[in-house]
Amino acid sequence: MDDDSSARIVAELRRWIATAAPGARLPSTRTLVARHAVSPVTVQKALRTLGAQGMVESRPGVGSFVRAAPAARPHDYGWQTAALGSPPSRASRLSTALRTVPNDMIALHSGYPDRELLPGRLVRAAFTRAARGDAAVSRPPAAGLPELQQWFAAELGAAAPVGVTPPTPRDVVVFPGSQSGLSTAFRALVGAGRPLLVESPTYWGAILAAAQAGVPVVPVPTGAHGPDPEELDRAFDRTGARACYAQPNFANPTGARWSPALADRVLAVVRRHGAFLIEDDWAHDFGIVDDPTPIAARDDGGHVVYLRSLTKSVSPAVRIAGMVVRGPARARVLADAQAESMYVSGLLQSVALDVVTQPAWRSHLRNLRHQLAARRDLLVAALREHVPAARLDAVPPGGLNVWARLPDTTDLTRLVRDCEGAGVVVAPGDEWFPAEPTGAYLRLPYSGPDPGAFSAGARVIGEALARQQDP
Amino acid sequence: MDDDSSARIVAELRRWIATAAPGARLPSTRTLVARHAVSPVTVQKALRTLGAQGMVESRPGVGSFVRAAPAARPHDYGWQTAALGSPPSRASRLSTALRTVPNDMIALHSGYPDRELLPGRLVRAAFTRAARGDAAVSRPPAAGLPELQQWFAAELGAAAPVGVTPPTPRDVVVFPGSQSGLSTAFRALVGAGRPLLVESPTYWGAILAAAQAGVPVVPVPTGAHGPDPEELDRAFDRTGARACYAQPNFANPTGARWSPALADRVLAVVRRHGAFLIEDDWAHDFGIVDDPTPIAARDDGGHVVYLRSLTKSVSPAVRIAGMVVRGPARARVLADAQAESMYVSGLLQSVALDVVTQPAWRSHLRNLRHQLAARRDLLVAALREHVPAARLDAVPPGGLNVWARLPDTTDLTRLVRDCEGAGVVVAPGDEWFPAEPTGAYLRLPYSGPDPGAFSAGARVIGEALARQQDP
Repeated sequence: MDDDSSARIVAELRRWIATAAPGARLPSTRTLVARHAVSPVTVQKALRTLGAQGMVESRPGVGSFVRAAPAARPHDYGWQTAALGSPPSRASRLSTALRTVPNDMIALHSGYPDRELLPGRLVRAAFTRAARGDAAVSRPPAAGLPELQQWFAAELGAAAPVGVTPPTPRDVVVFPGSQSGLSTAFRALVGAGRPLLVESPTYWGAILAAAQAGVPVVPVPTGAHGPDPEELDRAFDRTGARACYAQPNFANPTGARWSPALADRVLAVVRRHGAFLIEDDWAHDFGIVDDPTPIAARDDGGHVVYLRSLTKSVSPAVRIAGMVVRGPARARVLADAQAESMYVSGLLQSVALDVVTQPAWRSHLRNLRHQLAARRDLLVAALREHVPAARLDAVPPGGLNVWARLPDTTDLTRLVRDCEGAGVVVAPGDEWFPAEPTGAYLRLPYSGPDPGAFSAGARVIGEALARQQDP
Repeated sequence: MDDDSSARIVAELRRWIATAAPGARLPSTRTLVARHAVSPVTVQKALRTLGAQGMVESRPGVGSFVRAAPAARPHDYGWQTAALGSPPSRASRLSTALRTVPNDMIALHSGYPDRELLPGRLVRAAFTRAARGDAAVSRPPAAGLPELQQWFAAELGAAAPVGVTPPTPRDVVVFPGSQSGLSTAFRALVGAGRPLLVESPTYWGAILAAAQAGVPVVPVPTGAHGPDPEELDRAFDRTGARACYAQPNFANPTGARWSPALADRVLAVVRRHGAFLIEDDWAHDFGIVDDPTPIAARDDGGHVVYLRSLTKSVSPAVRIAGMVVRGPARARVLADAQAESMYVSGLLQSVALDVVTQPAWRSHLRNLRHQLAARRDLLVAALREHVPAARLDAVPPGGLNVWARLPDTTDLTRLVRDCEGAGVVVAPGDEWFPAEPTGAYLRLPYSGPDPGAFSAGARVIGEALARQQDP
């Protein structure tokens, strides 16, 4: 049997059928055998394929016939409205931070570092090496590549104070990106219908993941120095929540970094309530002043579930995050991760590990720190010059964003639209609030493309704002 | 400021602190500056790091002191029991099909093709090419790489009969593996608490994904030729379900392939009930008799949501699946996929596309077909010789498994244990039943390592079975 000949016959007969009347009889097998100089088996195979495609009908002993085609009609998907029912409470839409914009716009919105901030050479070399290795054709264990589990555990363990037992590689579960880690944590450790305390404002992706998991979020106000532990305590008391999601280092969007004293107080509150603190250490590699110390390093009681992403600092192509989760909670997390995605590409895990264990990774991070500092200072200076009405509660000590408060009278929707009209894309701060925003904010990343345009971008924002204040 | 010197000072002080008494005073900044020949800024940075790690306490103007370490204690994760609550109804455990076993065992259980059946050279070459390209450092759109969307749409469209509008690239959403696609389909198109019809037996991963989504499954009996459409009709009537999950081609585990007539009848039932048919075309590349025609190709009314995986046929490292979903359902699916994982590594998408568009991919598939046929025939012959009591309802026309029915009196748990004791790992058929199994089955893959051991494996199964029948 020759597959190619069979495919050729199928193609020819499809052309013939396209102009034939329904019910028309196809050339006989004998005719087709002769015409195409193939075996009867090959012709039979072609006819079976056409039969499976619903194009011909075979009547044994009689012949093959063109099937009646249904009349062409406009699509009617109306029935789906009934099948789907009403949408989940929070219509999840694409955040501004994920938008792709044309090259001629000034992009002051993206949540992802520009490629000039990525260790491109290291990433390409790691992919080339991995292409030759075992990871290109093998399946890793569900919890992750053992060597990568070990690396995540060692990174966190290195910051453990005396007397705190560091995590083991077995405590680590690898995810295809930190968004998947958040979704799993909220499903597995909180569960639909049970409350989750979150800082407000907080990362929009976490708000989205909670909504998807059916987990109602309870906002706890936070500022340039982190949340008030007494507010947190009251929120635990009032709601009976057993989990809190937070970004103790370089929070997105505020840039806040908790002091060691605040970290201790929050941990004490969390312990008193027998609760989990889900620590999102998304900006671990983006310290400007110095390297952040995860809260999780201070905890060996299984209270802090620690999530560290490599996607933003290594490459968007390397969707890898590691979660350190101790105690029985680990089994819950692993079961959910397996049900969701079975396992994570071992090649991506191997590439991630390769990059972060190269000596050049350390020098890349040092260089990155200087670039981020320069970019941040450039953006802050541009805002101070061109948007004097904007207030920065703090110059962020790390992370990728400036969180700028605008006058309370600002019409944020109009401002964003006006900026876009003038070629500058900015993200309205509202997207980072789990409830009504407490003010008019912009989240302005300094890690996007072309820092040379920061000044021009800030000028556009300033002018749009001025038009509102002085109509 | 010198990061390396600062890290060196941190490391040395950590060693010193490890043996120091709590409250002990650290060497002064001046001493450290002299000892390490660094600037005061570098020393201050080291002290800040130790402070952040909770190891020292600084009293301005006085000095730095070793913090009191909490007394070492055994871990007590008991509080997590209260925080987590009782586990979800179906305790999801790892399927036998995912188990990794030692090399000296005969593995007649794995759900994944052995690497000798993978296009290893194509995959490695594609990774090497992709490492040089843009995909290594860029972020693709949330729905997928446009070229890959186009490929998935064209593959399905090529099988569309006359009069059926083929899907467009926009109808395609790319997932990090088909398990993620199933999870999203069940969450987004069915939703927690609403029923989903499934064939019984069916793929264990689908049963798992439904359980995770809180979707109760309603089993509809199926056999070597697919389900009875009247049973399906009754199940829709009785439950009010608006969705059905099925594998019309080379079902896992039965190997069943629906005839065109059955496909038409099932589609008619699905349409009459205004329902979705979630078609899992996992074995599209594993046809032995010929290439399968997806049911989705016959539908342009948005009823069939089509899921095709590339992970099993390309490589476990290339976790990529495509879903064709038309009408408003697409927006639901995309929103869920984004909330779950934001986007899929563009490099993996680019590698998948590279592999399946190489001319060598076609010849690989032809060769694969012959290998699968030979392996299947070898396993079937071995079973007929050594396990005469086993009944095969059909020799599968494609897919990767033989579904063998054992005598009703078989103690399956004992059989599996006895086989394992004799060095042969087999998967009990129970894992593929959403409810109580209707008989004692084994699912035996012919795509695993070392087909030369099929005969020895079958002999072990036969002997273990004979011991039960003739004690």
